[in-house]
Amino acid sequence: LTCPKDALAVMVDIFHEYASKDGNAHSLNKGEFKEMINAQEDPGSKLRSPNYKEGIQKLMIDLDSDKSGEIDFSEYMTFLASLAVVCNEYLLESMKGCHYNF
Amino acid sequence: LTCPKDALAVMVDIFHEYASKDGNAHSLNKGEFKEMINAQEDPGSKLRSPNYKEGIQKLMIDLDSDKSGEIDFSEYMTFLASLAVVCNEYLLESMKGCHYNF
Repeated sequence: LTCPKDALAVMVDIFHEYASKDGNAHSLNKGEFKEMINAQEDPGSKLRSPNYKEGIQKLMIDLDSDKSGEIDFSEYMTFLASLAVVCNEYLLESMKGCHYNF
Repeated sequence: LTCPKDALAVMVDIFHEYASKDGNAHSLNKGEFKEMINAQEDPGSKLRSPNYKEGIQKLMIDLDSDKSGEIDFSEYMTFLASLAVVCNEYLLESMKGCHYNF
């Protein structure tokens, strides 16, 4: 994987892999969302966090901006974009002191 | 590549690969943005479109929502998220008539 186009294709494919389990590929229901998140998490992190279940519940409520009870594609992309912004800020922080002038 | 985390890492890495060329990894200047877009395009598409140059110019103006003259990371992610939504709609359209009930 080397370019944004491949990365976008992965994001679309993974959404569809889980969203279409109930025959409706437009959105992730609670079970599909949980399954998708679980599949991304490394097992250790689940065991360490006692309130892992509540965490997913709260995350879904936060992401479901139109309160439809499901996560549609644009809510999913908003979630990933915010994660990317957090990743970027973390990367910039860790690069401080390197040869970039911040 | 199988998961959104990898896809996000690619998006952050590619932004940095181009944004840091002028020593400022926070945003893409016009040259860096053009170089990034050119690197993604297959050569054929550039030759076919006479107003390719104006297209990139206009795209940059459209994406630069804070009118800073550069594309920062969140403007970049907004661009990719909108592309993903277009990809998703195209995928859903092409899936019509398959076994999903739309």
